[in-house]
Amino acid sequence: MRTITFDMIAEIITIGDEILIGQIVDTNSAWMAQKLNLAGIRIKQITSVSDDRQHILDTLHQASQRADLILITGGLGPTKDDITKKTLAEYFQTGLRTDTDALENVERIFARYKVPVSDINKKQAEVLENCTTLLNMNGTAPGMWIENNNKIYISMPGVPFEMMYMMEELVIPRIKGAFKLPNIYHHTILTAGIGESILAEKISDVEDSLPEHIKLAYLPKLGMVRLRLSGSGQDAEKLNAEILSYSKKIIDLIGEFVVIESDTALEKVILDLMESKGLTLSTAESCTGGYISHLITQHPGSSKVFVGGAVSYSNQLKKIMLGILDQTLSTFGAVSEETVKEMAIGAKSEYKSDYSISVSGIAGPDGGSTEKPVGTVWIAVAGKTKTVSKKFNFGNKRIQNIERASISALTLLFKLLKEEQA
Amino acid sequence: MRTITFDMIAEIITIGDEILIGQIVDTNSAWMAQKLNLAGIRIKQITSVSDDRQHILDTLHQASQRADLILITGGLGPTKDDITKKTLAEYFQTGLRTDTDALENVERIFARYKVPVSDINKKQAEVLENCTTLLNMNGTAPGMWIENNNKIYISMPGVPFEMMYMMEELVIPRIKGAFKLPNIYHHTILTAGIGESILAEKISDVEDSLPEHIKLAYLPKLGMVRLRLSGSGQDAEKLNAEILSYSKKIIDLIGEFVVIESDTALEKVILDLMESKGLTLSTAESCTGGYISHLITQHPGSSKVFVGGAVSYSNQLKKIMLGILDQTLSTFGAVSEETVKEMAIGAKSEYKSDYSISVSGIAGPDGGSTEKPVGTVWIAVAGKTKTVSKKFNFGNKRIQNIERASISALTLLFKLLKEEQA
Repeated sequence: MRTITFDMIAEIITIGDEILIGQIVDTNSAWMAQKLNLAGIRIKQITSVSDDRQHILDTLHQASQRADLILITGGLGPTKDDITKKTLAEYFQTGLRTDTDALENVERIFARYKVPVSDINKKQAEVLENCTTLLNMNGTAPGMWIENNNKIYISMPGVPFEMMYMMEELVIPRIKGAFKLPNIYHHTILTAGIGESILAEKISDVEDSLPEHIKLAYLPKLGMVRLRLSGSGQDAEKLNAEILSYSKKIIDLIGEFVVIESDTALEKVILDLMESKGLTLSTAESCTGGYISHLITQHPGSSKVFVGGAVSYSNQLKKIMLGILDQTLSTFGAVSEETVKEMAIGAKSEYKSDYSISVSGIAGPDGGSTEKPVGTVWIAVAGKTKTVSKKFNFGNKRIQNIERASISALTLLFKLLKEEQA
Repeated sequence: MRTITFDMIAEIITIGDEILIGQIVDTNSAWMAQKLNLAGIRIKQITSVSDDRQHILDTLHQASQRADLILITGGLGPTKDDITKKTLAEYFQTGLRTDTDALENVERIFARYKVPVSDINKKQAEVLENCTTLLNMNGTAPGMWIENNNKIYISMPGVPFEMMYMMEELVIPRIKGAFKLPNIYHHTILTAGIGESILAEKISDVEDSLPEHIKLAYLPKLGMVRLRLSGSGQDAEKLNAEILSYSKKIIDLIGEFVVIESDTALEKVILDLMESKGLTLSTAESCTGGYISHLITQHPGSSKVFVGGAVSYSNQLKKIMLGILDQTLSTFGAVSEETVKEMAIGAKSEYKSDYSISVSGIAGPDGGSTEKPVGTVWIAVAGKTKTVSKKFNFGNKRIQNIERASISALTLLFKLLKEEQA
């Protein structure tokens, strides 16, 4: 297999009607593009086509004219509308064989659900004769790695977590083994509490001074902005040192907004910090409705720090679960500094944790008033030595308000942690 | 302008690097596809390309070979890397003119921010000589409607809310005026608790009997499968009746797994059902860590049904919040039928709700044993007349275990609701 030192080109082809009728948003391609980019591979085109034999054949042909690597997702299900496998067989003028490992995998999965394996399921274990099978540990449809005419084609299921596992565990390592990719070094600075444009102004001098081979990307998401320095070159050590020096220059300018110098989720940074100090955390959520707890508990090992929390959605549960006083609710309302502080203090003492986060707000679309419009959110953090609180005014989009309030609450916790644990 | 009575084909082309490097997810295309589909227009392909002159020209040429209508988003900004306009001018071999209405619009917007209009901003008002201008009320970049060679090309900004306004207010109405479109009718059946392949076997006879103009699509997601019947034709009433009759045939075969005959999220179906009966719900989550509460509370109006819940992550909080007995935990463990039933019953009485869901399991990657491997999850639902429980064995992926356990818990609740409220 040849090695290429020049910029490697890949294309992504998604097969299936769901994207074309707008039933689902294509999140797979963005995720794959990110992973490939980090590996030093450039995506030339992303193409979504339906389960249409001729159209798939034409799309494969055109992609092979432009790219070295063609990643295909979708259309591997057992149903009649899934025609990717037989269309690929036609494209490569090869046949299908039953892969014994893939068949064992299908049988293993059906055994788990105590369902007999029917013929249609057995067909899931069929792969192209000319392929290397990529076992699917999260589903019945195997992936396929095909080398043809100096190009590599990779077929994967469209179900996100099946594709993601296959990409991370099998495909990316195999690509790195098959090609000599340029050294790409990334360094990420996670910032919170500052907008992209203001950030850009503050560091514009550093950005303008970057050499050709080092790029700066702004990756904004929900009140946080990731700054990613990416450089490519042959001398990894030199490149690494160079990028770190630019990172230092940036941090000198915006240090107060920097959470961490790595591409880590804020809640994971907090979990690691608290675990290292032997601290515990609890939550008291109203308008975020459990989303903060979810962000925390999606990380393995979170139970070492997170004891749990209340989703005190109704006022009654604010009283029952957290001991909020009737008088506080009637005088100041559920969305107030007084209530949110009582919630944090209540959770901290009820659940015997070292720290506690609380949130109460109006997520919308209804429930707003002129005094407290939709998007009004109060957040409090009860810490070792004190309880801090802050009022936010987000937009009128419910889901965004939930996400922003959660990130803001974690940011407030992180700041108090740094202050009290410094 | 001709009218077409046959199935009209459109393609979407997105221009810009953000999607290709995975910096943003392409939500525009799904949104546009939905709107066009409802208008009776079929999307043949969605293509994402970078700001590369030749690649854009080739993509336009290929799309025009397949489609009657080509929608282009992005690359209309004022910066150097936005080359859509001059590339379109080259493609149509025409020039650019300043549109006076578009220029007024630019000046209006800058006046609002009290910023002088620079020359580079004035260029925003330039459009193709051969186009009808589509004014952008939410930004400076005008859209363009171009008729060429019996095809229609529409160029729009990539900023979602600018594009959405333009589509709804200007593009869709114009398309409807220009073409006599067929009716496209979709009917979705939401199923839970049955896999795609088993489902396919059960309804294969109906699927085989479908006429050319009616298609059946399987849309699986986390233990739920959406079945979507889509048909196109001129007689809307006849088509509608025809699809409903096939839907009935399918439901006769798989009725027990059918949640609802609409494209609605399971938790929303539950919220609507419970609200209509005046019922309330609470949760007691361990391994799902608040994800069930989040699924529920992301829906506006959920507070009418959902009072709140406990994220009782630690054993201590299971005792404090839900009154789980030491003896139950020591004898059977946190992941057991006994504990999960006590959790549901505890939440129902503590939080004074009509129904309560509880989940306790081993999400992984650690914490498994030979007796209770990672992926073992116990779920209980306390209802009006009884408490039901069920054991599940999911895979070894933490996030998927959390999502699957949550969907399974909601499915168990839905079944008990139907049983007790029937």
